[in-house]
Amino acid sequence: MAGSVYGTNFRITTWGESHGKALGVVIDGCPAGLTLNEADIQSFLDRRKPGQSKYTTARAEGDEVEILSGVFEGKTTGTPISLIIYNRDQHSRDYSEIASYYRPGHADYTFDEKYGFRDYRGGGRSSGRETAGRVAAGAVAAKALKELGIGLLSYTRSIGNISIDDSSFNASDINENPLYMPDREAAKRAASYLDELRAAGDSAGGVVECIIKGMPAGIGETVFDKLDAELGKAVMSIGAVKAFEIGDGIRASESRGSENNDPFIVSSGNPGQIIKRTNHSGGVLGGMSDGSDIILRAHFKPTPSISMSQDTVNKSGEEISVNIKGRHDPVIVPRAVVVVESMAAVTLLDLLIRNMGVRMDHLKKIYAQNFIPDCL
Amino acid sequence: MAGSVYGTNFRITTWGESHGKALGVVIDGCPAGLTLNEADIQSFLDRRKPGQSKYTTARAEGDEVEILSGVFEGKTTGTPISLIIYNRDQHSRDYSEIASYYRPGHADYTFDEKYGFRDYRGGGRSSGRETAGRVAAGAVAAKALKELGIGLLSYTRSIGNISIDDSSFNASDINENPLYMPDREAAKRAASYLDELRAAGDSAGGVVECIIKGMPAGIGETVFDKLDAELGKAVMSIGAVKAFEIGDGIRASESRGSENNDPFIVSSGNPGQIIKRTNHSGGVLGGMSDGSDIILRAHFKPTPSISMSQDTVNKSGEEISVNIKGRHDPVIVPRAVVVVESMAAVTLLDLLIRNMGVRMDHLKKIYAQNFIPDCL
Amino acid sequence: MAGSVYGTNFRITTWGESHGKALGVVIDGCPAGLTLNEADIQSFLDRRKPGQSKYTTARAEGDEVEILSGVFEGKTTGTPISLIIYNRDQHSRDYSEIASYYRPGHADYTFDEKYGFRDYRGGGRSSGRETAGRVAAGAVAAKALKELGIGLLSYTRSIGNISIDDSSFNASDINENPLYMPDREAAKRAASYLDELRAAGDSAGGVVECIIKGMPAGIGETVFDKLDAELGKAVMSIGAVKAFEIGDGIRASESRGSENNDPFIVSSGNPGQIIKRTNHSGGVLGGMSDGSDIILRAHFKPTPSISMSQDTVNKSGEEISVNIKGRHDPVIVPRAVVVVESMAAVTLLDLLIRNMGVRMDHLKKIYAQNFIPDCL
Amino acid sequence: MAGSVYGTNFRITTWGESHGKALGVVIDGCPAGLTLNEADIQSFLDRRKPGQSKYTTARAEGDEVEILSGVFEGKTTGTPISLIIYNRDQHSRDYSEIASYYRPGHADYTFDEKYGFRDYRGGGRSSGRETAGRVAAGAVAAKALKELGIGLLSYTRSIGNISIDDSSFNASDINENPLYMPDREAAKRAASYLDELRAAGDSAGGVVECIIKGMPAGIGETVFDKLDAELGKAVMSIGAVKAFEIGDGIRASESRGSENNDPFIVSSGNPGQIIKRTNHSGGVLGGMSDGSDIILRAHFKPTPSISMSQDTVNKSGEEISVNIKGRHDPVIVPRAVVVVESMAAVTLLDLLIRNMGVRMDHLKKIYAQNFIPDCL
Repeated sequence: MAGSVYGTNFRITTWGESHGKALGVVIDGCPAGLTLNEADIQSFLDRRKPGQSKYTTARAEGDEVEILSGVFEGKTTGTPISLIIYNRDQHSRDYSEIASYYRPGHADYTFDEKYGFRDYRGGGRSSGRETAGRVAAGAVAAKALKELGIGLLSYTRSIGNISIDDSSFNASDINENPLYMPDREAAKRAASYLDELRAAGDSAGGVVECIIKGMPAGIGETVFDKLDAELGKAVMSIGAVKAFEIGDGIRASESRGSENNDPFIVSSGNPGQIIKRTNHSGGVLGGMSDGSDIILRAHFKPTPSISMSQDTVNKSGEEISVNIKGRHDPVIVPRAVVVVESMAAVTLLDLLIRNMGVRMDHLKKIYAQNFIPDCL
Repeated sequence: MAGSVYGTNFRITTWGESHGKALGVVIDGCPAGLTLNEADIQSFLDRRKPGQSKYTTARAEGDEVEILSGVFEGKTTGTPISLIIYNRDQHSRDYSEIASYYRPGHADYTFDEKYGFRDYRGGGRSSGRETAGRVAAGAVAAKALKELGIGLLSYTRSIGNISIDDSSFNASDINENPLYMPDREAAKRAASYLDELRAAGDSAGGVVECIIKGMPAGIGETVFDKLDAELGKAVMSIGAVKAFEIGDGIRASESRGSENNDPFIVSSGNPGQIIKRTNHSGGVLGGMSDGSDIILRAHFKPTPSISMSQDTVNKSGEEISVNIKGRHDPVIVPRAVVVVESMAAVTLLDLLIRNMGVRMDHLKKIYAQNFIPDCL
Repeated sequence: MAGSVYGTNFRITTWGESHGKALGVVIDGCPAGLTLNEADIQSFLDRRKPGQSKYTTARAEGDEVEILSGVFEGKTTGTPISLIIYNRDQHSRDYSEIASYYRPGHADYTFDEKYGFRDYRGGGRSSGRETAGRVAAGAVAAKALKELGIGLLSYTRSIGNISIDDSSFNASDINENPLYMPDREAAKRAASYLDELRAAGDSAGGVVECIIKGMPAGIGETVFDKLDAELGKAVMSIGAVKAFEIGDGIRASESRGSENNDPFIVSSGNPGQIIKRTNHSGGVLGGMSDGSDIILRAHFKPTPSISMSQDTVNKSGEEISVNIKGRHDPVIVPRAVVVVESMAAVTLLDLLIRNMGVRMDHLKKIYAQNFIPDCL
Repeated sequence: MAGSVYGTNFRITTWGESHGKALGVVIDGCPAGLTLNEADIQSFLDRRKPGQSKYTTARAEGDEVEILSGVFEGKTTGTPISLIIYNRDQHSRDYSEIASYYRPGHADYTFDEKYGFRDYRGGGRSSGRETAGRVAAGAVAAKALKELGIGLLSYTRSIGNISIDDSSFNASDINENPLYMPDREAAKRAASYLDELRAAGDSAGGVVECIIKGMPAGIGETVFDKLDAELGKAVMSIGAVKAFEIGDGIRASESRGSENNDPFIVSSGNPGQIIKRTNHSGGVLGGMSDGSDIILRAHFKPTPSISMSQDTVNKSGEEISVNIKGRHDPVIVPRAVVVVESMAAVTLLDLLIRNMGVRMDHLKKIYAQNFIPDCL
C-alpha cells in the first residue's frame, strides 16, 4: 500500500530511482498464453526516449529492457513478468548543491517532509525516469488488448497554448513530427514556441489525448471503480499532470442536457448493434464503457526544471536564489504521450479481467466443461 | 473488487438502490476514540437533500441516518461503523415504460450490457441516491480530520457558464444561497439561468470547488497513489463528473515553468516554517501534500434527466422518440457540493492513516512504550 | 484494511456487535443472475442457532435475515447485497462487573490494548455473534457454487477426544443428531461427555471437517494466494480456531514421500479424465485444486466461557478471582460447523471468480462476441 | 491479484522461475530510515541454501542478492526495495521427459489445468526456489522488527516422527546441527533416519516451529485479518505445508476450558504490566497479540521428489510408471526453517504498520507537531 503497486487483477509494481542501478516493473496477473518478447516492450520504451523521432538518429545505447521471468517459449505463463532496465548513464556527478536546497516545483521538500530525508540524485524516485516501468507494463497490456481487438491512439493535443486544429487532424502525422502531433502545421508552430522557451531557459506544458477503440460495452465498475475514475487515477498519477478530462470534459459543465445527452441509434452497418449518434460522453456512461470510442485528456504543467534564476529555501532554512545547472528539456509532453497510453492500457486490461466474473452465465461458460461433479 | 468498496486503511463500502428498502455504508478502519453521533452525520446528509437551503423550510421527513454499530458510549470503537438510511418514499410507480428503453445520458444501456439486465426503478444503483452512503461516510471522515486540525471548504464555482468572480469571493455567502455559491451576485444570475432551463425542460452542469486547509506536508504516496491521483479517482467516481483539476489544473498546461513554479519562502509569522509564495500547485508536489491549501475542482455534466423529447432505442432494438416523465431537477451541482467534500474527506483521512507507518521513527514513537522485550 | 473485509473479487464486509442494534454483511461482487431469496440465507443461519437440531423445537423468534439491496425480481443484480439481522434479545443486563476485569481466554485485554477501551457488552465485536454475517454471506456463496456444480459437506469430526470412526461414517447421520456428527455412536458418547462438562461448569473443544466436491482443477493462485493458504486464513479467522489442516494435514509430516504422493491415473468411468488414485493431498497440489475432493479440518479450542472460578486481573491492576455468571454453552463446535462451511464457500467462490481472467483464451471466449472493433 | 503479491502496508511481490534468468522480490512499504545492506539479507538467504551448516564447506558460489533500489546511503528511503538473485546454475539439461508427464505430488498437472501449459524446467514457478524472494523480504522485515524490539526464533521441531524433547530444548543447539534442531540427540536420530531414506530413494516431512518474542499487545485485526489468520495464510502459502498450528494448536481441541484458559496475572518483575500465567493461546487472543510469546508450527509433507518408481499419467493420457532422475534431497524441512521465519516476519511487520493508525490518540501523536493549521 506504499503506492508503487497499481491495478487489481492485472497488477503492476514499479521500482527504481533515477540514479540507482536499474529500474523495473513486475506484472502479476498477466493472462497466460500471450505471445511476448523484448521487442514488443522495447518499441514502447523507445517512444519515451529523449530526442526520439523519425528525424533524429536513433541512439545506439538506449534503455534496454530485459524479460527476467514469466515468459516461456515465447508466451506468458501466467506467473509474474519481471522486466528490468539497467541505468547505464549514471554520471558520478556532484549532487551536493542540489541536496542542499528545495527545487521549486519538484518533490524535494515533500519527500523530506514525508520520509525525513531523500535520495537527491536526479530526483530519485520522483524523477521522470520512474515512468519507464509504467511504459514497459503498458506495452504488455497493449499487446493483450490488441489480441482482444482493442486499440489505443495517443498524441500531443497542445503545447502551451498551441493546439491542434481538429479539422486538420491526421493520425498519420503523429509519428512524422518529434512532438507527436496529428497536425503538422500545429507541430511547426509548437516547435518554434519551444525554441523560444529553450533560449529563455523556460519550459512549456501541454495536453496529451488518448483514444481507445474497440472496447466492449459494460467494462468498469458502477460506483467507486468506474472506468473513468480508474482512468482518472491512472492519468493523475503521472508526474506533472494537473487535470484529467473524459469526453467533453470541462466543456460539459457549460453545456445543456439537451446538447450533452448522446442519443442511442441502431448501427446502419450492423443492424443488431446499438450505438450512439454523438459521443459527448467520451465512451463512458455510469462508469462503464458504452461501446463508443473512449476519449481522455491529460493536462501537463510545464516541466519545473528551468535554467532561470529562482527563489527558494535551503535546508538550513535560509531564503536563497538558485540557478539549477544541467541540460533541461523545455517540454516533457511528447515523451509523456506513451506514458498516458501505457497507463490507459494497464487500466483497461485490468478492468476487462475484473469484468470476467461478474455474471453467472460467464462463469458457467468457462467452468462448465472443465469437470464432472460427482455429487450435489 | 466489484467497485462499491473505497479506500484502503479507512475503507468504506456503500450499498443500496434508489428504490430499494434502504441505502447505507459500512466504514471499516475508522480510528477508535472519535466522538460521534447521528447528528454529526445528519448535518452532512441534510446538505444533499433536494431543496435544502436556509431559505426553504427544513423538510420534516428527510433522509434519516441511523448508526447500527461501531460506536459505544458516544465514541468510535475501531470496529465497523454501519450506517443505514431507509427509503421512505418508495412510490409504487409504474416503471414498465422506463424499463423498455435506454435513456440517453444514463447508465441503462451499460448496465444491461454488463450484467445482462438491470434494476430499472429510478436508476437502481446508478441513481444519485447512491451518494447518500458516500456523504454519511464523508461526515465521519471530516469529523476525524477536524480533530486533527484539517478543514474542508466546498462550494459551487459555476453553473453552466456563470462562474463566481474570485474578487467577490465571500465564504460566508455559501450557505446564504440555495446554490452554495460564495458570490451572491453570481448566485442570482445562476438562479435566473436555471429558471430559464427549467421552463424549457432542459438542464445545466457546473463546477464544484473544494479547498482543504491544515493538511500536514508529506501525505500521499509517491508513485501511483499520489494524493492528487487518489483525489482524482475519488472525484471522478461521482456520477456526472467529466473532469478533475488540482491547483491551476488545465490552465497549468498553457503556463510557463517560470510562472508555474511556486517559490519556497520562510513563513514570516512562523520563522521555522517553510511555505510557498504562490500556490499554482494546489497544495501537491510529487504526489504529496506540500503544506499549502489543497485546491480541487470537479466538472459536472448537465443532469441527463430532461423533459424534452429525445431519440433513443428500445429493448426490441427499435429507434424511438421519448418524453421522460417526472419532475426533473435542472441542476444537481449544488447538491453535489457535499458529495465532493465527502469524497475528499474520505480520501484525505485514508491517506493520513496510511502515512502513519512510513517511517521507522514514527513506529518507534508509537510502539516504544507499549512493551518490554524479553529477548533480542 | 481494518480487518472486517474479506475476499477480493467476491468481497464481504461484516459489521455489528453482540449487543448492538443489528449485525450484517455487505457482499460486493456477487455475480449477477443468481436466483436468491431470504429463505436461501435463513437456512444457513438456522444451522448456527443455539439449540438447533431435529430434536429440538424450532424457536419461533430466531435470527431473521432481511435482504436490503442487490436483488431485483428474485435475482442478484451484480450490485452490493446488504443483509441485516436485528438483535432482538438485547437484555438490559448489568455489564459493570464484566467491564471491570479481563476474562481469561477472551479478547477483553487485547481489545483494550489495541483501541484503548472496548464495548464490553457480551464481548462486543469479538462475540461469536459476529459469525452471523459470515454465515449469511456463506449461504449466498454456497448457492452460487451449487449452480456451478460444486457442493460442500461439513460436520463435527470430534468433541474433546471423542472422534467419529471413519468406518462408521454416515453422511445422513449429520442432521440426525444435535452435534452434527456423521456417526451416531460417537455422537452419543460426545453428548454424555458434554453433559458431564456442563455439570462441572467446564467446556470442550473439537474438530470440524469440511469436504468440497466438484471443484474444477486449477483454482487457487500459485504462490501466496494458494487455495490452501486462502482456506487456511479463512478458517483461522474464525474465533477459537487454533489449527488448520488440509488433506492428511499433520499426519503428512510423519509420512514418507512414497506413501504421501498420490499417483495419477485415468478415470475408469470417464476415460479422458485424469484423476488421482489416492487423496493424501486433500485436493490441492501446488496451491491449486487438483480435481479431487478438497478436505479441510478446523480445530477449535474449548469455549473460554466457563462457570468455574478463575484467576485474572482487574482494570485497576489487581489480581482477583472471578466466577463469570450466565448460561454457558459447554461447546460451540456444532454451531461452528456452518461457519467453517461458510468461510470455505466464500473463499472458493472468490478464487473461482479470480480465476476467470487468467488465460487469454478465456478472455477471448467471453469478449469475442460482444463487439465489433472498428480499428486495429 | 494473481497471487504473487503479499501484505498490505508492507507489501512484497516475488517473481522468478527455477530455471529462469533470475529471481527476486520488490518490497513496497518498507518504513524509511532502516539501516540495510546486502549482508543483512544474505545471512537469511544463506540459511536456505542446500547443504548449509557449520559442518559443511561454505559454497563459494551461492545465491547472491543485490539491492537494486530503495536504499540510499545505507538507509531505506521509503520507496520500493528491489532485490535480485541471478540463477547461476542454469543447466542446459534435457527436460523433454519431465515435460511429457505429471509428477505425483507436484504441481505439473494443476499448472496445466490452470494455464493451459507450463514452464516445466525444474518446476518453474512452483519450485522451492520461489522461496528465495520470500526469504530476502523476510530478512528486511526481521531487521525492522529487531529495531522495534521484536525477535524471532525458528527451528526444526521434528523430522518424520522424530521430534525434539522439550525437556532437552537448547536454543544454542539450533545452529550446531545441519537440521536446525534445538536438541542434539534428536538431531542425531533424525540424521540416521534421513540416511536410511536417502538410501531407499524416499523422503521425509517434518515440523518447523517459530517463536516471536517482544511483540506488543493489540497487534492483528479483530475479525478476518486476525494475527493468527494472517500467520496461517503466510505459512500455508509455503509449498508443502499441510497444517498450521498456533499455541496449543490441535491439542487445544482435546482440552477443557478450565485447562486451556490462561489466567491473567501481574508481572512480578514489572508490577504495572499484565501478563499471563500460562500460554496455551500461543500469544494471541481474539486475533490480537496478547503480549506473550507467539508460537506457531508448520507441518511439511515429505518432499514429493523421490527416486523410487511411481505410477502416473502422461500428457497423452496414458498410464505409465516413471523413475524421476536427479539428485533428490530426502527432506526440505531444515531449509524451510528460514522460510517460515521470513513469512512470519513479513506478516508481523505488516500488521504492526497497519496498526499505527487505529487510534485517534496515535494519529494526534504523529501529526500534532507537523503543521500549524491556518483555519478551523
